[in-house]
Amino acid sequence: MEGEIEIIRRIAARVGIRAPVTVGIGDDAAVLDDGTVLALDMVVDGVHVRRTTHSPAAIGHTALAVNLSDIAAMGATPVAALVGLGVPATLTADEVDEMYAAMEALAAAHGMSVVGGDVTASPVLTLSVTVMGRTSPGLAPVLRSGGSAGDVLVVSGPLGASATGLLILSDPALLPHLAERDALITAHLRPTPMVAHGHSLAAAGATAMIDISDGLLLDADRLARASGVGAEINLDMVPIAAGLEQIARATGVDTDILAATGGGDYHLLAALPASAPRNPSLAVVGRLVTGPPGVRALRGGLDVTPDRLGWEHLLG
Amino acid sequence: MEGEIEIIRRIAARVGIRAPVTVGIGDDAAVLDDGTVLALDMVVDGVHVRRTTHSPAAIGHTALAVNLSDIAAMGATPVAALVGLGVPATLTADEVDEMYAAMEALAAAHGMSVVGGDVTASPVLTLSVTVMGRTSPGLAPVLRSGGSAGDVLVVSGPLGASATGLLILSDPALLPHLAERDALITAHLRPTPMVAHGHSLAAAGATAMIDISDGLLLDADRLARASGVGAEINLDMVPIAAGLEQIARATGVDTDILAATGGGDYHLLAALPASAPRNPSLAVVGRLVTGPPGVRALRGGLDVTPDRLGWEHLLG
Repeated sequence: MEGEIEIIRRIAARVGIRAPVTVGIGDDAAVLDDGTVLALDMVVDGVHVRRTTHSPAAIGHTALAVNLSDIAAMGATPVAALVGLGVPATLTADEVDEMYAAMEALAAAHGMSVVGGDVTASPVLTLSVTVMGRTSPGLAPVLRSGGSAGDVLVVSGPLGASATGLLILSDPALLPHLAERDALITAHLRPTPMVAHGHSLAAAGATAMIDISDGLLLDADRLARASGVGAEINLDMVPIAAGLEQIARATGVDTDILAATGGGDYHLLAALPASAPRNPSLAVVGRLVTGPPGVRALRGGLDVTPDRLGWEHLLG
Repeated sequence: MEGEIEIIRRIAARVGIRAPVTVGIGDDAAVLDDGTVLALDMVVDGVHVRRTTHSPAAIGHTALAVNLSDIAAMGATPVAALVGLGVPATLTADEVDEMYAAMEALAAAHGMSVVGGDVTASPVLTLSVTVMGRTSPGLAPVLRSGGSAGDVLVVSGPLGASATGLLILSDPALLPHLAERDALITAHLRPTPMVAHGHSLAAAGATAMIDISDGLLLDADRLARASGVGAEINLDMVPIAAGLEQIARATGVDTDILAATGGGDYHLLAALPASAPRNPSLAVVGRLVTGPPGVRALRGGLDVTPDRLGWEHLLG
């Protein structure tokens, strides 16, 4: 079977959208004409999470967080979530409790509700979460496709923490006294959706936005192609998670490449008009340019774009 | 692990609802204060469908249809669907095409859109579908809980076709010349959601409504308990699918019990005030009564309630 992207392309060719839907497959969330946004993301044990490293709470948190991140990337606020739960025979009732307690805690922190779903037997633990959100009055959802050459590209925080946390989890003997160890592992196991940042960026006039779920370069490439422009990412300007550099050195990985291609951070990447006021909580990492659609990674002005831009879940 | 119902009870105890949500877990769909309704139902190969008997088109159709049925049971109209697809290595690209073509055909027939979703590797074919719907201006969503003693109970059509179709599929040598054979098999493989009936029932003043996904008696029991009243179903009055009687006789199954406990029909069961005008396309099957909450099946005035009220997917 083909990769995820190819299957989605195949599906998108089969389905059509009708009013009141204005945006269907291809953005972080679908959009209705009243500012309603809808996103669905699945989390499967062994693919996106691992019951060996992720606690039930981390799995529940992650399944909701990745969907909130999609809502954040539209500049919208989450309202309601539905959870489809595929339960293997090995899952205990206590584990179900812990998963939903973690989802409820995250929902409560965002003033939203887990409103329903479905439970079914399944050979593998599967959480399929849908989140409905809404934009604030006067603000349109921010698509991937609205960027223009000349816009600056900003990210909502330092990158690479999640991928670095995964390196630590894969080799527990790695720098056992590193101060940032726990924070990096937590970044991997319990990603934080940037809902407030998404709202601020929409209010600041972001022309295009995407969440960095699969790596800065891959998601910048998606934003650039959707907008029909080029994207230049200056690796020298990419903010790097504390502790990443030490782990990169200890494992022989390139620091910038780890930060710019490691997925799972769920920060936001947005395009802002060059005239937009600077926000000190955002880091400028590059710009949109005329030319062939797609991303280029630059270091000291040289093109250093790697072959592998980020993390795509490939199917067997 | 416990049964589906027990797990849902456990989950419902963990999560709270917040405005603008007015109804969370426990009805056919969740409800927001503006009349938005949200439902999620999963279809897993080997649990709800079988790749051995269901074509890819039948699986795609069923996954969307069961969700449209939940929207119909609220008296609402479907607007948008999201599909989470868990893809096993054995699924071909053509099978994906056929599944989504069937979903698109059903979506188009209802003027709604498949707007997005997710694709992931999975050991078993899984479709997790969410549908968002809306009520018409001036109509509130019809809950399970609004019924009162004295209301009449009506169903939107003859029952037992799906369960009878399953009996035929399980024993292909059964009455090979029965005229209704293909129609009964189709009822099992491609259920029809009763969206127009749901809308009419809401407009006619239905006080409570549920879709008959798991059998008339079990779903009547749910409606009665949610409404805090008893429900009497007169088996003599239950309309029976054409061909069911012959198959029941050939297999030694009780005709009324097959019609009243066989799941998968996706007709609607609604409570209407006794004063509501009679609609000839609906069949009266009983009434809500004072007394202990729950269903009783009557035949010739005698209580013949079976132990097993319907079909509940039990977990291993």
